[in-house]
Amino acid sequence: MNTPTIYLVGFGPGNPDLLTIKADRLLRETQIIFYDNLIDETTLEIYPARKVYVGKRKGRHSKHQTEINEILYKASLEYTHIVRLKGGDPLIFGRVGEEIDYLRSKGIHIEIVPGISSASASAAACGVSLTQRGISSSVAYCTGHPLQHMTIPTADTLVFFMGASTLQEIMHALVTQHRSLQTPVAIVRNASLPTQHISQHTIESIIQSKYVAQSPSIVIVGDVLINP
Amino acid sequence: MNTPTIYLVGFGPGNPDLLTIKADRLLRETQIIFYDNLIDETTLEIYPARKVYVGKRKGRHSKHQTEINEILYKASLEYTHIVRLKGGDPLIFGRVGEEIDYLRSKGIHIEIVPGISSASASAAACGVSLTQRGISSSVAYCTGHPLQHMTIPTADTLVFFMGASTLQEIMHALVTQHRSLQTPVAIVRNASLPTQHISQHTIESIIQSKYVAQSPSIVIVGDVLINP
Repeated sequence: MNTPTIYLVGFGPGNPDLLTIKADRLLRETQIIFYDNLIDETTLEIYPARKVYVGKRKGRHSKHQTEINEILYKASLEYTHIVRLKGGDPLIFGRVGEEIDYLRSKGIHIEIVPGISSASASAAACGVSLTQRGISSSVAYCTGHPLQHMTIPTADTLVFFMGASTLQEIMHALVTQHRSLQTPVAIVRNASLPTQHISQHTIESIIQSKYVAQSPSIVIVGDVLINP
Repeated sequence: MNTPTIYLVGFGPGNPDLLTIKADRLLRETQIIFYDNLIDETTLEIYPARKVYVGKRKGRHSKHQTEINEILYKASLEYTHIVRLKGGDPLIFGRVGEEIDYLRSKGIHIEIVPGISSASASAAACGVSLTQRGISSSVAYCTGHPLQHMTIPTADTLVFFMGASTLQEIMHALVTQHRSLQTPVAIVRNASLPTQHISQHTIESIIQSKYVAQSPSIVIVGDVLINP
């Protein structure tokens, strides 16, 4: 019997055109796919593998991480070629760390296949570079919640994953950090998909209008958003 | 005549398997490819387009950014489907910002196609996630030079692009920022390629051994590198 391999694969931002050639090939060849939130089931229909939803979604049974770890381990006893599919890039807020640690402790062979991050897809949608000579020499990715448990990094460009629900708190925190009220902010939903939606603001306009963003959204903050 | 489009396309870390399906299709369909450093010419041989090197490499004529901008603009007068190919993700230290600004000012239609960043490919090679619950709630990408002109961000995980030549300076700057001397550091060269090379250190061991890294390398700093 072949040694089982679990491939931790990034699906990218949602448009199948932004899958890597390797991810697409692994999905075609695999026996079983465990997929997550942020992945539209219809995009998986072309793959013959068995598909198992293990995400956390309203109205469905919500799985804990320990339960998902167990499910993946059990699959490795039955299948030799397993794909664990994550939206975006699994290495950035994909929560694969715990799965990697658990499966390694069980002696399972793991291979990580990076994906296009929602941050990059969102910046591409806005038509801007996340870093730019003379404007931004660093970019940081952070979560928008829980904000009380984290310090916002000090990078020139900031990208908040899952930043919609705490948008007002984030903006106030940026003011406390002495970011200019005129700093541009872009809020991007469904980057790369036909339903893609971008709105352009400043820190001040979001605070003053009490702007409410829909979840999930990527929030980009920084002067790279100023088009000449 | 069709309106010309310049596609700013990420090639990813070098392994053609990590191209996106879209990037691969655009490369097959395009008339001319302008490519950069960090891209191995042999991987472009399968594409029928005319290929033009516009990078900055030792022993070759080094092109200034204004010269590259002009070359791209002139191509748009002759071709309708142009690919400007960048190693990694063009939106992260790909220096596409200036090309975007210039070409937009000339009324050229631009489309950005994100790529797998070398940061993600390097983390995948190390088998670690750049963020991890309880260990790292943020990751920042920054350049390693010129270090005197930048402030190192304060994120939990740091990724230095082009960090090899200033490795010792970076480590000393991290100590000044009160990072623990025991913080793990991974130095990754040629991630995703057969020549991939990873070395594992701590801030202290790099300083004490006066470790010298080869360029170009990605330098990852942070506790996510501690495997259980």
